[in-house]
This record gives sequence, C-alpha cells and structure tokens, in this order.
Amino acid sequence: MKKLLFILVAVILLVGCVQQPATEPITGMIRTAVPERPEGQTDVLELACEPLSVVRVGFIGLGMRGPSAVERFTHLEGVEIKALCDLYPERVTQTQEILTKAQFPAADEYSGEEGWKALCERDDIDLVYLCTPWLLHTPMAVYAMEHGKHVAIEVPAAITLEECWQLVNTAEKTRRHCMMLENCCYDFFEMATLNMAQNGLFGEVMHVEGAYIHDLRFLNFASEAEGGYQGYWRLKYNAVHTGNPYPTHGLGPICQILNIHRGDKMNYLVSLSSDQKGMTAYATEKFGDTSSMAKTDYALGDMNTTLVRTEKGKSILIQHDVTSPRPYNRHHIISGTKGFAQKYPVEGLAFDPNAHSFMPEDEYKKFMKEWEHPLTKEIGEKAREVGGHGGMDFIMDYRLIYCLRNGLPLDQDVYDAAEWSCISALSEMSVTNGSVPVEIPDFTRGAWNKVKGFRLAEKQ
Amino acid sequence: MKKLLFILVAVILLVGCVQQPATEPITGMIRTAVPERPEGQTDVLELACEPLSVVRVGFIGLGMRGPSAVERFTHLEGVEIKALCDLYPERVTQTQEILTKAQFPAADEYSGEEGWKALCERDDIDLVYLCTPWLLHTPMAVYAMEHGKHVAIEVPAAITLEECWQLVNTAEKTRRHCMMLENCCYDFFEMATLNMAQNGLFGEVMHVEGAYIHDLRFLNFASEAEGGYQGYWRLKYNAVHTGNPYPTHGLGPICQILNIHRGDKMNYLVSLSSDQKGMTAYATEKFGDTSSMAKTDYALGDMNTTLVRTEKGKSILIQHDVTSPRPYNRHHIISGTKGFAQKYPVEGLAFDPNAHSFMPEDEYKKFMKEWEHPLTKEIGEKAREVGGHGGMDFIMDYRLIYCLRNGLPLDQDVYDAAEWSCISALSEMSVTNGSVPVEIPDFTRGAWNKVKGFRLAEKQ
Repeated sequence: MKKLLFILVAVILLVGCVQQPATEPITGMIRTAVPERPEGQTDVLELACEPLSVVRVGFIGLGMRGPSAVERFTHLEGVEIKALCDLYPERVTQTQEILTKAQFPAADEYSGEEGWKALCERDDIDLVYLCTPWLLHTPMAVYAMEHGKHVAIEVPAAITLEECWQLVNTAEKTRRHCMMLENCCYDFFEMATLNMAQNGLFGEVMHVEGAYIHDLRFLNFASEAEGGYQGYWRLKYNAVHTGNPYPTHGLGPICQILNIHRGDKMNYLVSLSSDQKGMTAYATEKFGDTSSMAKTDYALGDMNTTLVRTEKGKSILIQHDVTSPRPYNRHHIISGTKGFAQKYPVEGLAFDPNAHSFMPEDEYKKFMKEWEHPLTKEIGEKAREVGGHGGMDFIMDYRLIYCLRNGLPLDQDVYDAAEWSCISALSEMSVTNGSVPVEIPDFTRGAWNKVKGFRLAEKQ
Repeated sequence: MKKLLFILVAVILLVGCVQQPATEPITGMIRTAVPERPEGQTDVLELACEPLSVVRVGFIGLGMRGPSAVERFTHLEGVEIKALCDLYPERVTQTQEILTKAQFPAADEYSGEEGWKALCERDDIDLVYLCTPWLLHTPMAVYAMEHGKHVAIEVPAAITLEECWQLVNTAEKTRRHCMMLENCCYDFFEMATLNMAQNGLFGEVMHVEGAYIHDLRFLNFASEAEGGYQGYWRLKYNAVHTGNPYPTHGLGPICQILNIHRGDKMNYLVSLSSDQKGMTAYATEKFGDTSSMAKTDYALGDMNTTLVRTEKGKSILIQHDVTSPRPYNRHHIISGTKGFAQKYPVEGLAFDPNAHSFMPEDEYKKFMKEWEHPLTKEIGEKAREVGGHGGMDFIMDYRLIYCLRNGLPLDQDVYDAAEWSCISALSEMSVTNGSVPVEIPDFTRGAWNKVKGFRLAEKQ
C-alpha cells in the first residue's frame, strides 16, 4: 500500500517537473552593452594615489547637503577648505559663516552657472566635494577629474547608464579617485553587520535587503522659500522617471557585505512599481485639485521593488517609496546560512542554533558591543558629537580624508558608484518594459573577481 | 543665470527620458493559456448552496494537520464527524481517541491507499476535509466534488496550473464549494487590518507584502518516527521544485484586502531565487557530508521573492524561505495613501498625518481594540481557548461551518484557491527562465470585476 502511494507521489512529482520549463538560456532579458575600454586605460581597482599631508577641498552645492558637509569638515584634521561654490552667491556667503565660527580661514567664493568650472580649474585644490542636484553630479565630477581633482559625489553619482560609464572612463583615464558619498555604509548597525559578516557570523550570506522608504513629499512639494529643493528639481525628476531613482542608501551596505566586484557581481535585475497616487493626493490637498501640481501625471510609482541576482547566486531586494505615509525605513537585512540581522522597524540579530527568535535585549546589547566595527569603536563617539545623520556622515568624511592623506584606496571606488547608481536607470528600463530582466553591466570589464573581499584600507 | 541652469536641467531630464524606452507592449512575458469554459458551466462566484442544519464531515489525512482539525471540530456546533481516513490505520485509531475524549460518537474508519475514495463515495457526508500531502490535494478534492461533496483543502490547494484549472472546472461543473484552508486570513492582526482597509483607514492600498519565512529543516529532514512528513514528501518536493512552493499564507490576507477577483486581479509576476545552501548545510551537519541527503542537489533556493502587479496598478511582494536560520516571519504589510500597517517582527500602525513613526504602544492597543474585526470580537475568545495557531485555525473552521449551515458563500472560493496556489507553479516558471514575467491567468474567465469588494457573508 505504502509502495503504491510512493509511486503515485513520484509520478506526480515527475509530471510537475516536466511541465515546468527546465533552466534555459535567458531569452527575455534586456542586454546592456559594455563599451570597450579606451586604449591606454587600465582599471582603478584599489587605486592608491600620492599621499596628501593636507587635503585642500572645494565644495560645490550649498543647498540641502553642502553646508552640513562644510561644518563637518571643520572637525577634521588635515584639511583646508579653499573654496565654496553655489549657483546663488548668498548661499556661499552664509556658508562662509560656518568657517568664521569655526575659526577657519575664509574660503574663496564662487557662484553663478559657471562658478563650479572656475573652482575645478584651480590648481591648489585636491578634492572637489559635490552636493549639487542629481543631474549635475556626473558632468561636474567628470570636469573636476579632467582637471586633476579627486571627487566625492553625493548620491546617486550618476542617473543614466551613459553617465556611469563616463565616471568609470574618466576615473580610469585620469587615475583620480571618484567616491560616491554613500553615508549609510557608515551607520553603526550596518558597520557592525559588515564586521559580523566578514568574521563569518552569518555563514554564507545568501539574501540581503535594503530600502529607501521616506515620505519626502513635504520637501518635494516645497518651494525654495519653504526649504524645498532648488526649483523643485527632485519633484520634476520624479514626474518623468519611474523605477527606483534613489537606490544607493539601501544598496551600499549590502553590496559591501556581498563583496560586489570584489569576488561577486550583480548579474541582472527585475523591477516592479505600483501606480502613483501619493504625490497626486498630497498635491491635491496642498494646492487644490485644479492646481498644476495636482494635475501632473507623475511617472514614479509609489512603491518600487527591485530584485537582483548575483553571479554567486545571492539575491538582493531593494525598495524605494518616497510618496507614501509610512515610517522611515532603510530595511537592512542580512540572511546567511548561520544567522540573520535586521534593522527597521527594530534592530535584531539571530544566530544558529537559536535563530528561531531574535536575541533578547540584554544579550543583543552585549553582542553588539562585542562586534562593533573597529572603525565606529575608534571614531564613533566623536562622530555622534559632530552629528550628521547620527554620526555616519562624519565617519564617511573622516575615512575619505584619512585615505587621501595616507595614499590609500578609498572605501568606495568608482565601480561602486557606477554599480549602485546604475540601478536607477536599469530599474526604470525594467519597469517601463513590463518588469523584464535587465542585465547589469560589469563596470570593471572583467576584473570583478580580482580583489578578494571588501575591506577598509588601513595604513601599515 | 538661474534660467540657464533650468534649461540645462530640462535638457538633461529630456535626454534621460528619451534614452529610457517608453512603455511598450510587454514582449518578454510567458503567456499562460486560459482554457475555454466547458459548455453548460457558469462561474461559481458567490456560490450559495443548500443550507445544512448539520454538516456531516469526513477527514482525510491524519498526519501533521488532521488530528488537530478533528479536535477543533469537536468544539463546533452543528457538525457530525462521520468518517476518518489515513493511509495508516493506526493514525485513524489514534484520532478516534480525540472523539472518544470529547464524547463524540465514533467515526467510521478508512485507511490504505484506496480508503479516501470509499470515504468520498459515501452518501451521508457533506464536507470532505483534506489534510493530506500537497500532491494529493487536487486529485482528492476533484474526486470528492465529483461525488457531490463540498471540500476544504489544506494549503496549497493545487501545485500545477493544470490542477488549478481542474479545481475551478470541477467546482463550476458540480456547483460544490471548494475552499482552501488559508488559516492566516483569520489571524487577529490580519483581520484587524482587513477591517481597517475596508473602512478606508489606509486610503487606497497601493502595496502589500506577505511571506512564509519559517526554518522547517528540523521537520523536512526528520523521519516519520521523528515526527517528520510522511516519507519526506515535502523535502522530496523541495528537491525538484524551485520558485515559491508555499505562497498562500502570505498571499491570502493581502489578496482579500486588495479585493482580488472582486474588483481587481493579479496580472503578472516576476520571481527570483537565491541559490540553495541551507538544506545542504543542515543535511551535512545531521547526516555527514557523504550522506545522500547532503549530496542531493536541491532545486529550491534558500530565499525566493516574487513580485506581482495587479490590473489596478497595485504591487504585491511575497517571500518564501524555509531553509535559513531566521526568526519566523509572515511579514504582513499594508501600505496605502493614508496609512500603513506591519506585522513581523513587531506589530505597528501609522496613519496620516503622523505616519512618520509608528503609533505609541498605548495608543496602538486602544486603536487595535477599536478596530478589531467583528468576527474576532465575536469568536476570538473561544478561538484562543480552543487554539490552533493561536486561534486562527478555529475561526477558520467556525466560518466554514457557519456558512455551510446558513447556505452562504464561503469566505474563500475556488478562484481564491486557484489564484493563491498558482503562484507556486508560475513563480517556478519565472525562476527557471531567468526571472522573466509570467502572466497570471484570470481563473474567473472574465468575471473578476463582477463582485464588488471582498466580504464575509452573514445571514440576514
């Protein structure tokens, strides 16, 4: 009797198998071309440049993020703030006051639509720090590198695939650093999970998640006078683009944990968006249903989810929602063969053989102290004092300057910038084509497995 | 100056737009055929059958889920337990003791590989309640309906697309109820969010999430003597199938909230899995690396994520992971234009205009009491006493019997069973074809917008 049932089960299993198509070459994927590397260029993996005893910095973009960056730099050793630039001269004057207050020498001032070029053309600046709107990141970074400067760029570094390649090619040609300022890589919990992952506590990490879920409508629909983005640039971008336009906060920390282009690489993605209702609802409430803001047909869906598969068979989930009434969430999840970590809505850890529930509070606290990343152990207290998203912005700046002063490779290289930023363009391609898979290019052009594992460079 | 920058931004936006393909007909999708409805059949939407003053029940499958179902039924009014059936006669004898203890009359006993057929062939049974392995659900349900019985089937109701259509066609032909026993629809938090959604508290629900994340390796790798599944049937299934084989626990509650086939429908999915490592690691540890269990090439990835887009532009995220060391998680998320709810790892609610953070504990408790679903208010206390996953199993059985006794449509109809179960076969198709989109068939064959909104039927 038992035998007969077994045969029945086996037959049904077999039928179930046969009717599903077996793994075949992927035919439904949008391929993305990898442009040939220009002659004479080589990769900039682990690029080390001349050590700089003092890093001379010029800041461009003093709106949302610039002034606080300048303020943080006044707490760093070995920097000179040589120049400040913004479209509006009054912002430059205001930011100058930060330097005065910190007893720093006054910086040279640049403004207007050509000011940033003049800043980049100076020969006494080592690093250009870019806090301009997204659309200006790559043009300005390319220009700065062409003029021999290292660049640090707010997220995302690029918004099209072409721009990603421009950054890569320019960094390879000029041998200058091009770091995207992905601050979330330096948050305390994220750094602790990186430390745990690198020490094998999660076993083999198989699945990770990240997100940027932050109701930004109060900012996107605000005029400059109300503290909004200059000329509503972010709202205008969201009106004509879909997919995930802002993937890097979630991606950065988990790509470091997965050693992306340091032993693994992202192969393809699929992306799916809901319709948009949140912006229209907000605009209707704020400006009335006959207003142009309410009548705009915004392209960006309320929720976008993007899934990535890596060469080594890991899966990545990234979400974006800036238009729904939800609690803030960056959704940092690490799931491996031996353990699990989650941040948002609460922080939690679970390890084999007790992974069926999260560690109790007291044990968790002890554990987090034990496994705190050496970097946050070293600089975390000062970072919390200086501030900037709870300290992570300062740790990021600290590392940037530390590496430049010691001639070390930066934590985030130009391939990170391109890989994390390209999800914006590629997710849009997937969404506008009915969620078809889209190939993620290998920006290292074959060298993704050369460096073995992500690391923060330290002087010997 | 400002004007020039605006023009620059506008040009870049335009270029960004043009380079992305506009929305076009989806070419990369696997289409799923909808078989023509057999002549003389009509749909069974809101099917009402003859009221039954007493529901005479036969149970098939007394392994993992059956005995507790029998036990719960001894707490229901208006039922007669006429027959018990299992492959193994000793299980039938054991379950008989539950009836004795509850002072219920002894049921007739069936066993062996043909016992279930004899049970279905009786003419004094109204309802066949199926708790057998997945592979036997549809063959047994079809046979029971063909013999005039209503059927209640453990999840998933079907494992192939063909089986989904068999259930639909048989229910339409025989005009019998075919309810999948999706117990998670009856959990307290899920029911409360259904109540809130139906009262408009979330505004328009745009995005929902569900999951089945439960490390089942202790069960899947256990022999029957150790309390495992009969003949390792679930492990064997996972060895040859990928995708999400068990999607219904997460899907049920959110599909009810989205009014699937009651005003909206699921159009297509994309699905992506990580590689498998968890089962191999467990088997290696338990049986040694030379054991056949350790050397099996399991098809099921550790983590599967499936994304669905609906006709009305909503997005659904469903996850499955039964092989990683993680805390249990069914991840019930509701995100709308006015509010947000989340269950796992903690329960939380957030509503406009205070949605930037979750409700404080005391407010949350008060709110949950106020918005408790009328059904759990009515029967929740008794359900908690009787038990079964904290009470939800009993509420489910209670509703099933209530509706049958009153001649009302059941909460979950055959289209729900087909829609929620088909994700198993379709996600596998997507995964084995590089995550391409796969069309989700309309099991109502055009009638998905006939019923306006999901509801629990009540006698007048």
